[in-house]
Amino acid sequence: MKLHGIYPPITTPFDHNGDIYKSKLRHNVEKWNRVGLSGYVVCGSTGESVFLTTEEKIALWGMVAECASDDKLLMAGTGVESVRETVALTNAAAGLGYKAAMVRTPHYYKNLVNNIDAQHLYFSSVADQARMPLMIYNWPQATGVDIHPEAVARLSEHPNIIAIKESSGNLEKVMQMIREVKAGFQVLVGSAPTLWPSLQIGAVGAVLAFANAAPYATITIWEAHRTREAEAGLDWQNRIGGPAVLVTTKYGIPGLKYAMDLNGYYGGPCRLPLRPLSPEAKREIEDAFQDLKG
Amino acid sequence: MKLHGIYPPITTPFDHNGDIYKSKLRHNVEKWNRVGLSGYVVCGSTGESVFLTTEEKIALWGMVAECASDDKLLMAGTGVESVRETVALTNAAAGLGYKAAMVRTPHYYKNLVNNIDAQHLYFSSVADQARMPLMIYNWPQATGVDIHPEAVARLSEHPNIIAIKESSGNLEKVMQMIREVKAGFQVLVGSAPTLWPSLQIGAVGAVLAFANAAPYATITIWEAHRTREAEAGLDWQNRIGGPAVLVTTKYGIPGLKYAMDLNGYYGGPCRLPLRPLSPEAKREIEDAFQDLKG
Amino acid sequence: MKLHGIYPPITTPFDHNGDIYKSKLRHNVEKWNRVGLSGYVVCGSTGESVFLTTEEKIALWGMVAECASDDKLLMAGTGVESVRETVALTNAAAGLGYKAAMVRTPHYYKNLVNNIDAQHLYFSSVADQARMPLMIYNWPQATGVDIHPEAVARLSEHPNIIAIKESSGNLEKVMQMIREVKAGFQVLVGSAPTLWPSLQIGAVGAVLAFANAAPYATITIWEAHRTREAEAGLDWQNRIGGPAVLVTTKYGIPGLKYAMDLNGYYGGPCRLPLRPLSPEAKREIEDAFQDLKG
Amino acid sequence: MKLHGIYPPITTPFDHNGDIYKSKLRHNVEKWNRVGLSGYVVCGSTGESVFLTTEEKIALWGMVAECASDDKLLMAGTGVESVRETVALTNAAAGLGYKAAMVRTPHYYKNLVNNIDAQHLYFSSVADQARMPLMIYNWPQATGVDIHPEAVARLSEHPNIIAIKESSGNLEKVMQMIREVKAGFQVLVGSAPTLWPSLQIGAVGAVLAFANAAPYATITIWEAHRTREAEAGLDWQNRIGGPAVLVTTKYGIPGLKYAMDLNGYYGGPCRLPLRPLSPEAKREIEDAFQDLKG
Repeated sequence: MKLHGIYPPITTPFDHNGDIYKSKLRHNVEKWNRVGLSGYVVCGSTGESVFLTTEEKIALWGMVAECASDDKLLMAGTGVESVRETVALTNAAAGLGYKAAMVRTPHYYKNLVNNIDAQHLYFSSVADQARMPLMIYNWPQATGVDIHPEAVARLSEHPNIIAIKESSGNLEKVMQMIREVKAGFQVLVGSAPTLWPSLQIGAVGAVLAFANAAPYATITIWEAHRTREAEAGLDWQNRIGGPAVLVTTKYGIPGLKYAMDLNGYYGGPCRLPLRPLSPEAKREIEDAFQDLKG
Repeated sequence: MKLHGIYPPITTPFDHNGDIYKSKLRHNVEKWNRVGLSGYVVCGSTGESVFLTTEEKIALWGMVAECASDDKLLMAGTGVESVRETVALTNAAAGLGYKAAMVRTPHYYKNLVNNIDAQHLYFSSVADQARMPLMIYNWPQATGVDIHPEAVARLSEHPNIIAIKESSGNLEKVMQMIREVKAGFQVLVGSAPTLWPSLQIGAVGAVLAFANAAPYATITIWEAHRTREAEAGLDWQNRIGGPAVLVTTKYGIPGLKYAMDLNGYYGGPCRLPLRPLSPEAKREIEDAFQDLKG
Repeated sequence: MKLHGIYPPITTPFDHNGDIYKSKLRHNVEKWNRVGLSGYVVCGSTGESVFLTTEEKIALWGMVAECASDDKLLMAGTGVESVRETVALTNAAAGLGYKAAMVRTPHYYKNLVNNIDAQHLYFSSVADQARMPLMIYNWPQATGVDIHPEAVARLSEHPNIIAIKESSGNLEKVMQMIREVKAGFQVLVGSAPTLWPSLQIGAVGAVLAFANAAPYATITIWEAHRTREAEAGLDWQNRIGGPAVLVTTKYGIPGLKYAMDLNGYYGGPCRLPLRPLSPEAKREIEDAFQDLKG
Repeated sequence: MKLHGIYPPITTPFDHNGDIYKSKLRHNVEKWNRVGLSGYVVCGSTGESVFLTTEEKIALWGMVAECASDDKLLMAGTGVESVRETVALTNAAAGLGYKAAMVRTPHYYKNLVNNIDAQHLYFSSVADQARMPLMIYNWPQATGVDIHPEAVARLSEHPNIIAIKESSGNLEKVMQMIREVKAGFQVLVGSAPTLWPSLQIGAVGAVLAFANAAPYATITIWEAHRTREAEAGLDWQNRIGGPAVLVTTKYGIPGLKYAMDLNGYYGGPCRLPLRPLSPEAKREIEDAFQDLKG
């Protein structure tokens, strides 16, 4: 299974009571269906998965499966701290038509799980019992755990672990992984501000929060990479760098949802404790996105 | 409500299928009932709460409520990332007879929630809607977030926030909090290796993983503090220091459960990815606990 | 050699050209001579040693040796990154009448020196060649390196390493060290906000920046410890906690020097890039020190 | 002044007494003179500058100035913690014919100097008094301080600050800087494992420890960038990635010096506490460098 191209980890639309807003989800997916995205990741970090109950996750997977066009590959964010619950979630998503699971590094008991052996145990135990292939998900800025390239190299030997989404933004690490993993294991990145150089050094695709709001720009960079147009690629990269930092590092999901609202998608509110943007933050995002269409 | 004295954040017993082992839970609680503990915290970090489903948490709260003796104050670990779900869990526990909720700092979206305003919003929003009082829970070693004393001082003004369990082990911070919070706000600590000096500088109690396996020793320190027997207190502190580090920082919950097994409680296995102890680790714990009775 | 009691790591007075201000140094030392301090540490972190040339360090050691009263034990801060230069500085200070050297953990090449073997090599190599005994100096807040208690336990076996100044403020670590070092090895602390509990758990003394400006208060706590007056000790601790945080963590040496100016010592300016205090910071320090006499 | 191309921060050769080995320094420089390097950085981190006395630094600058060929641009590593001493060192190097100073971020008093205002004050104060232009030097892995892109953007306005050597390896940050600094300000990188993608996104040159031992490989990458040969560039990058990690992150300067010994340069011993390599480490480096000529 090839995971090439650009995937948005889709945001979860909430209404003003904080409930999932099904019609707006359909609106977003139908609009994304018309862009050259390779698929969707449902219930990733950008989807506020840590704020969702199990029932809500399963409902979301079902809703997206209903309205995604057939050419989109569906991935489910299923990683929680325990092997047992991660397997259950993964197999629930597989039953709903998902093709791969994105599984985050466990991180709560840092003194026990932040080492190569524990990471190997976790991912291989999940993979052994999962009814679809896994993509490892590394995002140290949230988890406080940064998976070691050696752990990834070992895990790449497992037949049911096919990829990693590396969101640290650390290109040295991405390059080391690409050199050391088993042939065919796919390295995707999760950082829009370094998309262009990541593709240049061998990443096969990307899962980008930013692509929720401005998918065309990310696909343009992907196409520039495929057609070897270095100037265009770097130029577009420089156009998205600032805006991408705004809606990830600086203002996070509330910022991203506001950019979606600006670009014809439904962003809407986040669940607490994520807070609404200040008027100044909104204006900063408006300025940054005025030339980036959805 | 006074939260003085020693509380174990009780471990969750699992059978060898990984399911909750109800009869062993009853065994443990009945054994603890006979010791001078002030109460129990159910579904804390030591209870592997991040590995439990919502249904399992509710079941555990019910089981413990059934078999705890009347003199024990019951607290429920209810903090998850969202305000909404934390409120729901808190009110479910209140309905089962719990008297206070222990609520962990949110930490996943670190760039957005690791600041005083967001922490104030989170805890005051939960407290506004909770049907029982809250104890803030700070454990930076797991969460990567260390609540600022100023946030605690502000939150101590909220009528429904009555205490903090400060598990960082940082006594400077504990002392600063004690000086700055509203009169009556209670500071408990969560680190057995610094129990004695923490009581000396004004902590009113402690929630101690170590007390699962060796409650008498911790109560002895508490009593030495109440009766101002400084030599006995420091002597006992030095006796538990090494063993307490073993079953927390070094070997974590698997180590603690093994020490429980040694002392007549049921420890049993943890859920994956927490791993069984090596024979060397077991021997180290056996040596350390040979003079510490349960 | 006993290192009991309170030692200020003395500030280095500069005139408004940034040169060492010898007459003010003499003024300060003569004023401190009249207080019950156990001795002086010259060229520690608080002495802006990282801003001093080798010639200036040697000059300072000489000047203080001239005006310190005979009952004060003199220690020299001599630790720099290389073994070779640390030995040279240590032996220069010994030649000027100093009795012990305070030697900081090396820290620049963190990937190479931040491990137990390298720390053992560094300190034992220095100790082998030093003509006076060493006190290890650990201050992770500046160096980014936190010496492991196991390294300290191993180094405590060296006949020429007699003490540690542990400035992390981490009491769990201090207690572990006290349990694990060779009998007779002395543990001093370097954090005024935790002085009282540190003495309670077995620290024999303290090297306190705060004692530059308010030596009486720290000596009062020391005396309360010796005479077992727990209430007085804790009361004084709580009186110095806030002011001590101001002139260390919050405003650093510029704050401390300003508090010295308030209390009849010469503080004066720091070398750049340390900046003068704002008027607000000055007012905050004035308020905090109004009941703390020099 | 253009700082394009590849610069080795040259190692400092010591004899077996630990003294500077002048004839070996001459040997190395004469051998490097014959390669297409753009110049030399003398007394950088790789030159063990934190182990050198002021007299040794000045002697080294003089020795290299004597034997460097005329086409090599000479830069001096002059940054120490104080403005005053950094200015003195910078002007001493300028007097010896150096063309630019590489000045490291101050970092010891982290709570006071790790902020944009203090960094601005430090670098602009040095630049105001320096008789040659400055290149900011950021290496958070050693200093524990990571200069903020906004500080760099502000400093790029100063007429005497012309460049930054950014060694964090963080390409997102490099890209942000390139977008935000004043036109003409030059961004160099200091990480061989990410050389190729750094050049792709706009870095104009690099200061690379690895270039001490294998300058040809780094120049080949530089040339591939100039001639837009993407495949060759990436291929060479992948060839140096592993070896470069070995002689920087993993084994540091002792590893690099050993690789120099293998390639016809004089590496020799480091000063303590840097330790000699184990036989296993030597073998690993031999294997990694067998196809990389000096």
